[in-house]
Amino acid sequence: MPTTADKPGAKYIGKSIDKVDALERVTGKATFGADIHLPGMLHGKVLRSPHPHAWIKRIDARKALALDGVKAVVTAADFPPIDTAAGTIGGELLVDIVDLRKMTLAHDKALYDGHSIAAVAATTPEIAERALELIEVEYEVLPPVEDSLDAMKPNAPLLHEALYTKTLGEKPSKPSNVAAYIESSRGDVERGFAEADLVHETTYSTVMVHQGYIEPTTATAWVQADGKVTVWSSTQGIFGIRRSVSSLLDIPLHRVNVIPMEVGGAFGGKIYAILEPLAVLLSRKAGRPVKIVMSRAEVFRATGPGSPMHAVIKTGTKKNGALTACYAKIIMDAGAFPGAPVGGAAAVSFGPYKVDNLKIEGYDVVTNKPRVQAYRAPGGTPIAFAIETHMDEVAEKLGIDPLKFRVTNAPDEGDKATNDQPYNRIGMKEILRRISRHSSWTTPLEPGPHRGRGLACGYWQGATLTSSATLMVNSDGTMTLNSGQVDLTGTRTTTRQIVAEEMQVPIEDVDVRVGDTDSSPYTDLSAGSRTAYSFGAAVNAACKHALSQLKGHAAAQFKVDSKEVQYANGKFWVRENPEQNVNLRTLAANSLRRASGPVCGYGTVTRLQAAHQFAAHVADVEVDPDTGKVTVLRYTAFQDVGKAINPVQVEGQMQGGVSQGAGWALTEYYHYDKGTLRNPTFLDYRMPTALDLPMIDCEIIEVPASDGPYGVRGVGEVPIVPPGGALANAIYRATGARLYNLPMTPEAIFSAMQKGQKRKKG
Amino acid sequence: MPTTADKPGAKYIGKSIDKVDALERVTGKATFGADIHLPGMLHGKVLRSPHPHAWIKRIDARKALALDGVKAVVTAADFPPIDTAAGTIGGELLVDIVDLRKMTLAHDKALYDGHSIAAVAATTPEIAERALELIEVEYEVLPPVEDSLDAMKPNAPLLHEALYTKTLGEKPSKPSNVAAYIESSRGDVERGFAEADLVHETTYSTVMVHQGYIEPTTATAWVQADGKVTVWSSTQGIFGIRRSVSSLLDIPLHRVNVIPMEVGGAFGGKIYAILEPLAVLLSRKAGRPVKIVMSRAEVFRATGPGSPMHAVIKTGTKKNGALTACYAKIIMDAGAFPGAPVGGAAAVSFGPYKVDNLKIEGYDVVTNKPRVQAYRAPGGTPIAFAIETHMDEVAEKLGIDPLKFRVTNAPDEGDKATNDQPYNRIGMKEILRRISRHSSWTTPLEPGPHRGRGLACGYWQGATLTSSATLMVNSDGTMTLNSGQVDLTGTRTTTRQIVAEEMQVPIEDVDVRVGDTDSSPYTDLSAGSRTAYSFGAAVNAACKHALSQLKGHAAAQFKVDSKEVQYANGKFWVRENPEQNVNLRTLAANSLRRASGPVCGYGTVTRLQAAHQFAAHVADVEVDPDTGKVTVLRYTAFQDVGKAINPVQVEGQMQGGVSQGAGWALTEYYHYDKGTLRNPTFLDYRMPTALDLPMIDCEIIEVPASDGPYGVRGVGEVPIVPPGGALANAIYRATGARLYNLPMTPEAIFSAMQKGQKRKKG
Repeated sequence: MPTTADKPGAKYIGKSIDKVDALERVTGKATFGADIHLPGMLHGKVLRSPHPHAWIKRIDARKALALDGVKAVVTAADFPPIDTAAGTIGGELLVDIVDLRKMTLAHDKALYDGHSIAAVAATTPEIAERALELIEVEYEVLPPVEDSLDAMKPNAPLLHEALYTKTLGEKPSKPSNVAAYIESSRGDVERGFAEADLVHETTYSTVMVHQGYIEPTTATAWVQADGKVTVWSSTQGIFGIRRSVSSLLDIPLHRVNVIPMEVGGAFGGKIYAILEPLAVLLSRKAGRPVKIVMSRAEVFRATGPGSPMHAVIKTGTKKNGALTACYAKIIMDAGAFPGAPVGGAAAVSFGPYKVDNLKIEGYDVVTNKPRVQAYRAPGGTPIAFAIETHMDEVAEKLGIDPLKFRVTNAPDEGDKATNDQPYNRIGMKEILRRISRHSSWTTPLEPGPHRGRGLACGYWQGATLTSSATLMVNSDGTMTLNSGQVDLTGTRTTTRQIVAEEMQVPIEDVDVRVGDTDSSPYTDLSAGSRTAYSFGAAVNAACKHALSQLKGHAAAQFKVDSKEVQYANGKFWVRENPEQNVNLRTLAANSLRRASGPVCGYGTVTRLQAAHQFAAHVADVEVDPDTGKVTVLRYTAFQDVGKAINPVQVEGQMQGGVSQGAGWALTEYYHYDKGTLRNPTFLDYRMPTALDLPMIDCEIIEVPASDGPYGVRGVGEVPIVPPGGALANAIYRATGARLYNLPMTPEAIFSAMQKGQKRKKG
Repeated sequence: MPTTADKPGAKYIGKSIDKVDALERVTGKATFGADIHLPGMLHGKVLRSPHPHAWIKRIDARKALALDGVKAVVTAADFPPIDTAAGTIGGELLVDIVDLRKMTLAHDKALYDGHSIAAVAATTPEIAERALELIEVEYEVLPPVEDSLDAMKPNAPLLHEALYTKTLGEKPSKPSNVAAYIESSRGDVERGFAEADLVHETTYSTVMVHQGYIEPTTATAWVQADGKVTVWSSTQGIFGIRRSVSSLLDIPLHRVNVIPMEVGGAFGGKIYAILEPLAVLLSRKAGRPVKIVMSRAEVFRATGPGSPMHAVIKTGTKKNGALTACYAKIIMDAGAFPGAPVGGAAAVSFGPYKVDNLKIEGYDVVTNKPRVQAYRAPGGTPIAFAIETHMDEVAEKLGIDPLKFRVTNAPDEGDKATNDQPYNRIGMKEILRRISRHSSWTTPLEPGPHRGRGLACGYWQGATLTSSATLMVNSDGTMTLNSGQVDLTGTRTTTRQIVAEEMQVPIEDVDVRVGDTDSSPYTDLSAGSRTAYSFGAAVNAACKHALSQLKGHAAAQFKVDSKEVQYANGKFWVRENPEQNVNLRTLAANSLRRASGPVCGYGTVTRLQAAHQFAAHVADVEVDPDTGKVTVLRYTAFQDVGKAINPVQVEGQMQGGVSQGAGWALTEYYHYDKGTLRNPTFLDYRMPTALDLPMIDCEIIEVPASDGPYGVRGVGEVPIVPPGGALANAIYRATGARLYNLPMTPEAIFSAMQKGQKRKKG
């Protein structure tokens, strides 16, 4: 696709325009989910299981219902029968519908600490809380299983009596906590290992972490007298929420309207419907609007966190560093229902390495913890921590500089991704070339004990899916772009740049808004680093469509064929006769008065080819030998973004990703104690703050993607992939201690350093 | 246009489907303008002039601003300068922008009792009320002029120092209260009168009346930190409100989003922005959302009522009843700013009569009363009262049966309307033919004194303008039609029928929603009996567009040309090979997964040719000779609706129009006393209730319109046109007293009867 950005004189693409929602957000005036107030609105609260694993023998809500001000109580019995064949229903729903029902309200079994058992709607939140205490639940407590390796043992407590491991072969004879086994391979790994000069195998683990969004999960619903459902949702995908409500509650799609609220952070954690179906159920029973807002503790206990991992990595290399075989066994913990991001981890794993002999085995395992959701490049951070520290060890063992090792094995266009598809144009080599010349790599660390520098690569394939938009040209020549594409990352801002560029109008003349499901053409969720890429392409198409309508109007006015009409900078003219011209504003005004009609462009794209995203990070750390505490001295993120539509926003994404990755690497973990979460607050769950990290330096590299508008690639996810490896490798250089588990807390580092000391002494 | 309705087997067109919003409305759960609540919302109140005519010398709001809880006070000084050349800005705004500014807040002069002087936003309505009392206004009181005839006198007080009568000729030398003079003629009226056997001239007057909607006028606005304006409006046209706010406050269209609320009655009275710009001004100053809700007294004093009229009617007729010349002088009272519906009255006047020699003179006159708005067939009811009683007198003088007289003069296709355009297919003759055979006309009145039967005709041209809609086909095969066309009269219901018919799907699979200006393609207001006709055509076009996309998807699947794809009842197949088929639901689901993309049909129509609407009513009344009170015994409305998409809804429109027409004819009037309105409540302003009228019988006649979908004509307005004449003629038959002025109150009738007695005696 020829791109505007390639032409000289792009006015808005590539410029760091201010975020359109910045002022609203920093002044607290943006309308988030909890800001909704409706006439007669009730407040919903959820009763949660205190047991990580228990049969629910009986629920008696009569006392709660009798409480003054209580308008409805719902339990699993309130769900209609479900079409079990519906599965995940195409692209709209990314979770099994039967599981989603049980995640919404536990049916026969409570499967984790905090699992929702019943919900209440009352006139005040206080009454609703009191009503929860009046609901009697009889549990038969079962032993929980907390870790995926334990869950895979033959005699482990079973979460689901009818869960059989999905494999390519026959159905297993016995139910299991292993929901799925995937395997992918090419070449002959055994031969590859046999041909290697060095075969190296290591084992890793990471724990459950939270996306750490600021805005608690919330939902409001209103089922009107005619049955029409309106949902106000803080979500990454309004059409997915619509589908969830529709399928769970047996309401056709056109009877559900989902209105997007401003989202106060999501990072993958606001994809599945968690509260929306509950709010709808309560509203339908009560006949009034119902709002549910989770407390922070509820968010930790009962929304979908990031998945923990166990992994075994094995590689074979020649003396010169060339990989001869790669193997990964990836065991991911899905929490209480299947769906860990094993596929994501597998895709990321050896993405930055070309190798002919490859085998990946993946396990999707259920445990008594909340069902995971996506978390920024889902699966990518844990597996890259494993692969990148492994590769660092291999390079060291071979006596090869870690950067040179990666250059030796870096893939290029035509090399195969882990899914066996050949890469189109990619920037991995260019990234490594840039690092080799960059001061973050070439300048030695300032002298000091316990200091070290680490390097790690990262990869993310990026989702594409479907995006659509309409562009209305108003009668004063201003333009409104409407779509159901939720803005998490500045989408409205970059989209505005695209419209202004394509329509060749001042950017002030363009407004972008996120509409609801009733008024917007179908669009998949905002996730997978797909919005700038796929939605950008849809916006581009909508602009071209609107422009063609305007050209048609001009052609009608001049009585020429549309092909004769030229356009630039707000002016249409006839090719052969430039004196026949009309400006866009006049055409727009006339469109209401003449038969031409209002201009409404429609653009939609489905399943472009992937725009692969690569990154590499360089981290300098200092470790306090007395405490194990890590201070990050300098951090530089290199990333191929294809084309930065808005460089400052791209930097924001890169910095945010690094910061979350650093939290995952160093401090964050769900502390489970016999199945009970002990740290469900931001005081005890330690995310890095601005005080914990230096300014993250960003090196934006632009190797245009093969498809999509302007060569843009998604940028949001890959920055969270390398930090675990970069920091672990830096800590190793600083301390001599290799860490194989995340998080690398001060205790863990101190302990690893002690072991190293003992080994040296011993 | 070949119409589905013409085909045998139409499933939904012509069926009395329940109104989709009926349940919401009768249960009070529909969300009207006053039901809005927003976080931090303030309450606005308006200070109103106690003087009908006064200079505003000084406004001092300091004490009000100092009151605790008051967040903003605005006066005319807060308006930005205005582009005076903007005028009415095409089709979007039906009032002069400079006038609209002065209507929103009086600038230098208060021009009627209740004219808005200043507005306050405060944390509670009570504080806002108290603040109003603290605003000091210094007035220089001027003599008011109440009646248009007085206003036209040479020495009448002038409302506007710079208002010069608009005529076709030169600009007058002196300002005047006559805003405009219009004249239209054909043939030679003087020769026509000379050729007549009977020349008859009569004089009429009607007074100011209110549309009588239940829901008081209201508006809510929120100007966000980034300047984006959101307006929640109970209006007939969201795009007109958007334009008003944009033009008055100098905000580009794309920075204003207008969200339609359910409308609790409008009838023409909710077209112009009355409170919206005020709410925006207040919100912009206060930085918080502001809601303003009028009291009933405010609605009466300061919204746009129906226009009063003075008229002189003169006709020439041959002995056989054939009209040789018609003349009307129509003086309409616009209230304080120009814009009385003189054009509407002129169009209606002799619409039901064919005549070669015609002259109509019209005057648009300003007086010290609130600026009128449209009221159902604006101008039609008063002028038809005049014409139809005049024609009744002429027929009587000629000794011709009133029905026969009208048959003699009834126009047909090709005859000219009052605007000189030839009628396309029309149903006037068919209506009269049907009356001639109908029991309401053929059955004699049951015997009794003071009983009489009256007949009157009515005409309405109907607006067309621009309408647009999008149709989204959801992945489960259900469909959502979105547009900015406000539903006043059941538009969602009939539109749903059109979509189900055109898409050949069950009506349950279709939902119709009214979107906001940001998400909906441009659509003009819901008024002028144009929605079923023009919007219906746009919906029809959107369906055809969606269907063509679906056919394209089917063609791609079967690898054939789109033209080969056939469709019926939810199934697509290939013409030559019916075994190649796919149902709509499957195609819809696949549209999200394949490159075909989501289906989004767009339809727009602009300025169809008019679908002329005719009606005739027959009324039987009994008059109490001791009080003059009229009892309506029987009332039958005959109307050519072209095609009744939903007969029960059409009947509802007819009955509602008759009921409002009867109120206008018999009981309703603004009681002004030296410029002050004395009856601004529903207790003192008497509208007919169900107890005051019999069941209105409806005779639906279907002569298909020449254009638009299914031959449909607008139906909402023409039923209010004949009642004044029908009831006046019946009262005459019952009492021998001719009434020339509306309303025909008991006092007026009693007095006319007394005069008649005296005349007989004398």
